Amino acid sequence: MQEITYAWFAFFDGQVLIEKQADGWHIPFGKEPPVVVPEGNTIHEIGTLDGHPVRAFALSVPVEGNEDGLRMMKDLRASFDVLPFEEYRMAGTASQILTWDLNSRFCPRCGVRTVQVARIAKRCPQCGQEIYPRISPAIIVLVKRGEDEVLLVHARNFRGTFRGLVAGFLEPGETLEECVHREVMEETGITIKNLRYFASQPWPYPSGIMVGYVAEYAGGDIHLQDEELNAGAFYSKDNLPEIPKKLSIARRLIDAWLDGKI
Amino acid sequence: MQEITYAWFAFFDGQVLIEKQADGWHIPFGKEPPVVVPEGNTIHEIGTLDGHPVRAFALSVPVEGNEDGLRMMKDLRASFDVLPFEEYRMAGTASQILTWDLNSRFCPRCGVRTVQVARIAKRCPQCGQEIYPRISPAIIVLVKRGEDEVLLVHARNFRGTFRGLVAGFLEPGETLEECVHREVMEETGITIKNLRYFASQPWPYPSGIMVGYVAEYAGGDIHLQDEELNAGAFYSKDNLPEIPKKLSIARRLIDAWLDGKI
Repeated sequence: MQEITYAWFAFFDGQVLIEKQADGWHIPFGKEPPVVVPEGNTIHEIGTLDGHPVRAFALSVPVEGNEDGLRMMKDLRASFDVLPFEEYRMAGTASQILTWDLNSRFCPRCGVRTVQVARIAKRCPQCGQEIYPRISPAIIVLVKRGEDEVLLVHARNFRGTFRGLVAGFLEPGETLEECVHREVMEETGITIKNLRYFASQPWPYPSGIMVGYVAEYAGGDIHLQDEELNAGAFYSKDNLPEIPKKLSIARRLIDAWLDGKI
Repeated sequence: MQEITYAWFAFFDGQVLIEKQADGWHIPFGKEPPVVVPEGNTIHEIGTLDGHPVRAFALSVPVEGNEDGLRMMKDLRASFDVLPFEEYRMAGTASQILTWDLNSRFCPRCGVRTVQVARIAKRCPQCGQEIYPRISPAIIVLVKRGEDEVLLVHARNFRGTFRGLVAGFLEPGETLEECVHREVMEETGITIKNLRYFASQPWPYPSGIMVGYVAEYAGGDIHLQDEELNAGAFYSKDNLPEIPKKLSIARRLIDAWLDGKI
């Protein structure tokens, strides 16, 4: 009987355990967990990676880097820069499921302890409701003005000095399209037209789906919403500021615009 | 000083209180609540309707229809048939916020009682996390075969005998597009191509956003997923079965296809 080699995702506080191999950094693969699984922490089966079943668990303390520098804890977002893309994506899935595990220990209606009943499902023994991982829908939009200008903003919660795109969470009762119009108006005071869909991207920080759109400037002057933004303006192609990193759908939108595809 | 006339949404177990006026059924408008607000139940401020601030609260028992038949509790979904569209839509928003209120009484991480800190935000006094209304993203897809055929299915959880479209909830870590391919494969065993976005629609049963797509049949024979579906086949335009009601994005997709728009 052949033994199974698992792909292991071990997390502590948003950081994932990675190992250096001959061809670069990877998450650990092996028959046994790369480190001891803390007592009481669930090992989640969350999918397959390159034919290997994927297992994820939470650490109670971070794993210390070993002397050879062949093992380290890496911030999930920064892991994009060093891990193969499919390992980075699966790390995001693992992170979302571990976050859900932590945030579903009690029934939010009854306050009693939940029990896990399936791969990604828990149930309240009192009211019977099932609790699945939460995914928060959010929109992001590239606003063009004429052929040469794009609206770029800096939100106070951005990690870095780059300029990105207007984005925000969907509110109950609105369509994604209404959400785009509302967010652009609230954050910048301008109106938009010719709204078109672009693509979607999971955004596991901690657990969202970003739905991307393209729109054209319709009218109004920019008045920034002070609470959320500290910069925002239209920029021309030959005078762009620092833009978001490659991992984000914001960058994919901006690159598609620079390439004349949207 | 002018007194404010509110729009009132009073719910019991998924049913909304409505009143008959000269021009048909409406939700109640007035300076005071249409019935006594049960002690301990929060009155939520959730937006504006036709210039009136909107207030919503949960009832502890349903309001009985009065003798004249001028007042009744109506199932939210069925209220689409009798209320003006904007009142139906706001009833959906109200329902989502009341559902959230009920389902956010305890911190799901700590198990302690939450406190409301803003219009639609609660906070856990122990861990500090904020809790917003949950909106579950789901996809729905119209699959065409050739110019004349559409894939219609009957899911076991449909309320009625009509045939609708393949739909399903987004899972952690996938794009909406990946979700469409996965759901079509899981539910019917076929592959699709040329996936295009259609539109989105809030789906407050109890709290979702439906993201609609159009695709073309690519290959495979139909093998229904027994657990979820009990019927499914390609139908031609001149031989359609009963289709979903006007309130759903499923119907909008089918109508757009019948009109040759998608």
